[in-house]
Amino acid sequence: MSARVFINEVAARDGFQIERDFISTADKIAFIDALSKTGLAKIEATSFTSPTAIPNLADAAEVMAGITRHERVKYVALVPNEKGVEKALASGADELNFVMSASDSHGRANIRMTAEQSLERIPRMVDMAAQRGAFVNTAISTAFGCPFEGDVAPERVLEIIARLAARGVQGVSLADTTGMANPRQVAELCEAVLKRQPQLSLTLHLHNTRGMGLANALAGHQVGVMRFDAALGGLGGCPYAPGATGNVCTEDLVHMFEQMGVNTGVDLDALLTIAEGLPDLVGHDVPGHVVRAGTAQRRYPLPENLR
Amino acid sequence: MSARVFINEVAARDGFQIERDFISTADKIAFIDALSKTGLAKIEATSFTSPTAIPNLADAAEVMAGITRHERVKYVALVPNEKGVEKALASGADELNFVMSASDSHGRANIRMTAEQSLERIPRMVDMAAQRGAFVNTAISTAFGCPFEGDVAPERVLEIIARLAARGVQGVSLADTTGMANPRQVAELCEAVLKRQPQLSLTLHLHNTRGMGLANALAGHQVGVMRFDAALGGLGGCPYAPGATGNVCTEDLVHMFEQMGVNTGVDLDALLTIAEGLPDLVGHDVPGHVVRAGTAQRRYPLPENLR
Repeated sequence: MSARVFINEVAARDGFQIERDFISTADKIAFIDALSKTGLAKIEATSFTSPTAIPNLADAAEVMAGITRHERVKYVALVPNEKGVEKALASGADELNFVMSASDSHGRANIRMTAEQSLERIPRMVDMAAQRGAFVNTAISTAFGCPFEGDVAPERVLEIIARLAARGVQGVSLADTTGMANPRQVAELCEAVLKRQPQLSLTLHLHNTRGMGLANALAGHQVGVMRFDAALGGLGGCPYAPGATGNVCTEDLVHMFEQMGVNTGVDLDALLTIAEGLPDLVGHDVPGHVVRAGTAQRRYPLPENLR
Repeated sequence: MSARVFINEVAARDGFQIERDFISTADKIAFIDALSKTGLAKIEATSFTSPTAIPNLADAAEVMAGITRHERVKYVALVPNEKGVEKALASGADELNFVMSASDSHGRANIRMTAEQSLERIPRMVDMAAQRGAFVNTAISTAFGCPFEGDVAPERVLEIIARLAARGVQGVSLADTTGMANPRQVAELCEAVLKRQPQLSLTLHLHNTRGMGLANALAGHQVGVMRFDAALGGLGGCPYAPGATGNVCTEDLVHMFEQMGVNTGVDLDALLTIAEGLPDLVGHDVPGHVVRAGTAQRRYPLPENLR
């Protein structure tokens, strides 16, 4: 097990994109700027998608232009197509996160492309990014199962990864889009990916839909995964799985790793301070645990009769 | 890793005891009777405690007399002292669960006894139970940390267990009373207990206070723990840690294990049906995930334009 992990904070993208209310550009910038000071390795700041498809992130360029870059943070932009690549590169994103689905139904629903169509298109996008020196990651949605089709064969995911790697993708995220993964499955698939593609940067993108978010992160870490997506407060969800809770919660994940003696590089207290402001920012409660309970270091006063 | 685990459902005791409203005796009996048909290994049905201390369980004898025993279920009663032992034995409980704390502050707050005082008293209680052939378990609260004192040394817990085992206790539960444990700590302590006391029945009693409940269960299972306490819906909490969420949620735990291919013996659908009725029974929302999201087998309809 690695003694160091790297956290990619995705609330500003995967969280804000499905909020009922538009988060103002100024609030997004202030949120990202606060996060930049907490020791996070990466911040997925926005998505260069059609404003019709995701109106909440229509201000992607303004957000990228407005944030104060921290030298130790990589700023990631999600990108669905060539137009998005151009805009993301123009915005100065350090890393582009392409997105595709391992299952065709989800791909068609989410980005109007089957896996095969994505695999044909992504190489052109890789070339555009490579010319400008941006790091290229590809998130593979439904890597652990599809909410429409059910099981997704690990061999299919491994084949997709092999083809992406052969065409210059430098990192892949295995995304448990609707929280279907279990720890055994996470361990097996991640172990296979690390073995077959040791040169790739592997990230786990987990959701806590069925309560297994931290258990899955633990299982991934045990087989050597060092990179994790997470969203402050556990924001996020999936438009195709209504009622589902969101991403694995950043402060809960950082807390677990730090308690285990695994260095996240993150100042948990600083992160918790930002997390405390989230309900005001998004206008509703969020599912994170540690903000409510305090860290495991918290002490309670003795009952009065025993003092 | 064991391919079979055994679940002890504690909602009727650890959950109901801290509910704001008294759950009627008839409702308790109906709840336990429904649970009895789901394949659970044990049900901790009630606690023979002072009605002043825990008014919600003042009907312990009536509950034990009213339930319909299922031949494959062991019915457990929590017992703090000799008076409780007498009553629990008279009620026909299959197993008595004594309770003590590894840390003196928590013991004094919870049962007015230091660990040493508990260790002096429990042998007399063991003898009473042994004469009647009841199985004797002892739950060790604050085994992974104390909300008043902080760290609890693993050696202290191991010493307590050795003394309990030497005096005829047949099983111990390591209780993470306020959700302070992390997976690494759980693995290390459970491994040590299993190694030093292989003849003891070891149970993990986890709370999800900081979101690590399932991750801790996974970590315990990985080192050989086969028995888990859990509360339907994630009911429960701790009077000394206000705002803290409750026990690890039974249906979420069963779901995780079954998804991993670990047999729990439990009919998850039957369990979920009972869990769906919990908010009505207790008068508030409960934190379980799978009831809301459905199991990982759940399929969603394709968006309309793709059908």
